[in-house]
Amino acid sequence: MSLSQVFTRDNPVFAAYAFYASVLVLKMLAMSVLTARQRIKNKVFANPEDAVGLKGKVKFDHPDVERVRRAHLNDLENIPTFLLVAILYVLTNPTPLIAINLFRAFTVARVVHTLVYAVVVVPQPARGLAWGIGYAITIYIAVQNVLFFL
Amino acid sequence: MSLSQVFTRDNPVFAAYAFYASVLVLKMLAMSVLTARQRIKNKVFANPEDAVGLKGKVKFDHPDVERVRRAHLNDLENIPTFLLVAILYVLTNPTPLIAINLFRAFTVARVVHTLVYAVVVVPQPARGLAWGIGYAITIYIAVQNVLFFL
Amino acid sequence: MSLSQVFTRDNPVFAAYAFYASVLVLKMLAMSVLTARQRIKNKVFANPEDAVGLKGKVKFDHPDVERVRRAHLNDLENIPTFLLVAILYVLTNPTPLIAINLFRAFTVARVVHTLVYAVVVVPQPARGLAWGIGYAITIYIAVQNVLFFL
Repeated sequence: MSLSQVFTRDNPVFAAYAFYASVLVLKMLAMSVLTARQRIKNKVFANPEDAVGLKGKVKFDHPDVERVRRAHLNDLENIPTFLLVAILYVLTNPTPLIAINLFRAFTVARVVHTLVYAVVVVPQPARGLAWGIGYAITIYIAVQNVLFFL
Repeated sequence: MSLSQVFTRDNPVFAAYAFYASVLVLKMLAMSVLTARQRIKNKVFANPEDAVGLKGKVKFDHPDVERVRRAHLNDLENIPTFLLVAILYVLTNPTPLIAINLFRAFTVARVVHTLVYAVVVVPQPARGLAWGIGYAITIYIAVQNVLFFL
Repeated sequence: MSLSQVFTRDNPVFAAYAFYASVLVLKMLAMSVLTARQRIKNKVFANPEDAVGLKGKVKFDHPDVERVRRAHLNDLENIPTFLLVAILYVLTNPTPLIAINLFRAFTVARVVHTLVYAVVVVPQPARGLAWGIGYAITIYIAVQNVLFFL
């Protein structure tokens, strides 16, 4: 792969990165809709100016709202870090099949994480496994980068 | 645009991205100053070791402090995701005029979001609109990327 | 530095960026382990489905757990923003010695921040200084970018 081609869709590893990165960002954005849905359904808001128009009250401990917010925070802890190390990993000449499947597996794991955490609550270890797969992939990629760029 | 020029300031789309990305990061960093200002003014801190030197107390529910922290968290939810998809969008050969104005509109919307949320509280829908413009732009960009890199 | 070489390990500034970025992401991921350790040690969980298997209870105000979570949130506020502006800074033809040492100093400062905040609590100004060094470096880099890409 010539360097001038590395950031084009002719590079299957980069194209997969760009595709899954955009899907993951859309998935993260969906958390705001899930939170808003819970706030409106339970008439529970974080700001007086929101509560007044929607005939709700200000409350910070509704379990259904807080559950979605924890899922969102978990995304913030795990997805941007993955996206930052994964684009560097594209530059380490990884085996395409491995790289593309790591990006795919991370994306699937994070979608499952959201589903079992914030949409339909599934007993553990469902969420732990989904989180752990994404976590392990990010560590693997970060360590590959450290060894390559050392 | 030759690929070897894509990440230079000779590419107006990339230069706009780099400029607005840096402005957005500076804006995000300003949230720490806004939080510190509210903590010192109200003598309310999150850690005993902070409270002791500044003659304050540990408290987690002061409304003025929590409001700024919510605005900051909203930035964390919306700005890094935008910056990650927007740099990929630069590589999809977007129409320069559209791309540059999307970056500009996102930046203006997020500055307005901070002003009406954490500096001077303005009744809704001011904050909802500012948030919604940034949110819609990020979705538009992510979908363009998905279609381009599929 | 020819543009076609800018994102290779032959460019010492980019190689340093990629190395320290990956180290910083690994450091951020370690926060999840620190949080889990405190949760298990204190038998305090955020979700009923976690508490049930580990014979703990749901509680949101245990000081040792919340301290690690605040350290983690501070990472989320400061590290991704740094990583986003620093990669753009690599493209501004910085003096290699300055750029590499800024990346190194930021990384050391954030590791120290975690140690004095969430591992062994050290009185202020230890944490304030560690935070301030990372904050000042990010501002410096963002301002350099703004001036370069304006």
